[in-house]
Amino acid sequence: MAEEVVIAVDAMGGDDAPDVVLAGVAEALAHDATLRVELVGPKDVVEPFACATERCEARIATEVISMSEHPANAVKAKKDSSIVVGCNLVKSGEADGFFSAGSTGACLAAATLNIGRIKGVKRPALGVVIPAYQRPCLLMDVGANADCKPEYLRQFAIMGSIYMKQTHGIRSPRIGLLNIGEEETKGSLLAQEAYRLLSEGVSGFAGNCEGKGLLQGDFDVVVTDGFSGNICLKTIEGTAKMLFSYVKDALMATPLSKVGALLVRGNLAKLKGRINPDAFGATPLIGVKGVCMIGHGSSSATAIKNGVLASAREARAGVIKALTEAIQDDMNATKEGM
Amino acid sequence: MAEEVVIAVDAMGGDDAPDVVLAGVAEALAHDATLRVELVGPKDVVEPFACATERCEARIATEVISMSEHPANAVKAKKDSSIVVGCNLVKSGEADGFFSAGSTGACLAAATLNIGRIKGVKRPALGVVIPAYQRPCLLMDVGANADCKPEYLRQFAIMGSIYMKQTHGIRSPRIGLLNIGEEETKGSLLAQEAYRLLSEGVSGFAGNCEGKGLLQGDFDVVVTDGFSGNICLKTIEGTAKMLFSYVKDALMATPLSKVGALLVRGNLAKLKGRINPDAFGATPLIGVKGVCMIGHGSSSATAIKNGVLASAREARAGVIKALTEAIQDDMNATKEGM
Repeated sequence: MAEEVVIAVDAMGGDDAPDVVLAGVAEALAHDATLRVELVGPKDVVEPFACATERCEARIATEVISMSEHPANAVKAKKDSSIVVGCNLVKSGEADGFFSAGSTGACLAAATLNIGRIKGVKRPALGVVIPAYQRPCLLMDVGANADCKPEYLRQFAIMGSIYMKQTHGIRSPRIGLLNIGEEETKGSLLAQEAYRLLSEGVSGFAGNCEGKGLLQGDFDVVVTDGFSGNICLKTIEGTAKMLFSYVKDALMATPLSKVGALLVRGNLAKLKGRINPDAFGATPLIGVKGVCMIGHGSSSATAIKNGVLASAREARAGVIKALTEAIQDDMNATKEGM
Repeated sequence: MAEEVVIAVDAMGGDDAPDVVLAGVAEALAHDATLRVELVGPKDVVEPFACATERCEARIATEVISMSEHPANAVKAKKDSSIVVGCNLVKSGEADGFFSAGSTGACLAAATLNIGRIKGVKRPALGVVIPAYQRPCLLMDVGANADCKPEYLRQFAIMGSIYMKQTHGIRSPRIGLLNIGEEETKGSLLAQEAYRLLSEGVSGFAGNCEGKGLLQGDFDVVVTDGFSGNICLKTIEGTAKMLFSYVKDALMATPLSKVGALLVRGNLAKLKGRINPDAFGATPLIGVKGVCMIGHGSSSATAIKNGVLASAREARAGVIKALTEAIQDDMNATKEGM
């Protein structure tokens, strides 16, 4: 039986909160018998649900941060918001992790300010595990840091490698640098300098990864700045969505193809399910002193369920401890090398 | 009948040159009765073909720049290479445009150095016309300038807008800025400053465009730096390629779906053709004093044909004259505004 873990869940996060959040939490609890949830939100939302649900406790937070508020300002002003209260539960050790489908910016700010960074981490980053061909690939940063320095990317590589080791059991992750060519002299000044840092002392670094290579399954971790990473992630989503519409149109174009469509429908639906962002549910914020996962604003109950379960898996996998050690080792090695 | 145009074609450009280039040129000439080609390359390649082909003249270039050479150095060292000789034909007015499927970097360098920039253009940029939902969208820069300043992006917007007006007949192109959120305060420092410049005086600017929005058909022109643009373009290609493999696997998964696959095959092949990069054939270098189009290194004969025909269309559309006027007008307006 899996180790017991406690995940704090933001009841008010997401476009369809709290209803889909409660439904997702119920599904997650039913799926994982040693999971406990601290449900954070207004009294009238969290108390009735917690009373009626096993392994779920209510944590009252009187305020809510909306998607449109300025993240850092809102986190500072609303100390009793569900996002801030949830992060504080991780900080105090009452929860092993925090999950929210609310404002990404507010979660980033609250986690960084309230949970705090792992010692030595320059910038925590958002990762997303992409369903590349025949193996998963962690792309980071996908939006926490729009402007990056080369040394941030170097640290993303170290952290991403540990993350994939701990959560996916990959022994020696292959690390790539997102770039616009395969040769080391290619790319922006940031990419060129990051290449140099990565090749000089990050174990597992395997070279540049082009946008078209990301999904080919050549790498376990691909690092980039939060601007390019977010563009890349959203482009994958947008392209997949458009192609599925096109495929649907093509299948419905003629009477004969309609008959064929009936026969292939089941398999295509399975494929769509496999590459559906809902199946992943959440993106980890990597580099803070606690598990923190952020879901899509448009999360369905299934996405919430998967996000909560992923948070529990991450907490059980001992990611934070491993990250803390790796960053410390790297700092020691860099000091010795100087 | 269309106006007569002369396109200089690099016989040695591309992984399968010269064979596919010659085949593509023959197809283009057959398709366009008022097109003339100046075929540039080694004597033994271009002379026999030109002798046997109507409206085709041989231009001897004794050197070839390979894909692996340092672009700017190679262009300076190999004055008699097919790329440099081709660009010089545009400069001298003997050709109305130049097409190559060779080294993108060498073409950029040769076009910028030998044909020269349009007066006032800070940086020429590579554009690519993407098959967005129900309408084409020009994404630029897709790789000529890995590091950009905000004012470059502003000029890309002005040039891209004129390009889509002239080549696609779009009266008032809607311009977007590739960014990681829809709000104007989002993004890197570059994106934030570019947003300000665009919103202050570029007619047609319609706000930020996220990676997932690029293919939705909301914009006619989307501007970004060459790093993000290249990542975005290659990600679209990679995602489409992977999804087609997945769809194929899904169709072949069961005996029933195989029967269905037979019935939908024709329509899916048509779809694949429509979104195939070969159908576009070439990306324009926008901002130099002459038509210059660059094809994929892996161009097929069809891609070469389409690239040559696109170069001819661009020359006939009077893009260079319109760009020259627009940049001049903008410089005058900016001066007055100061």
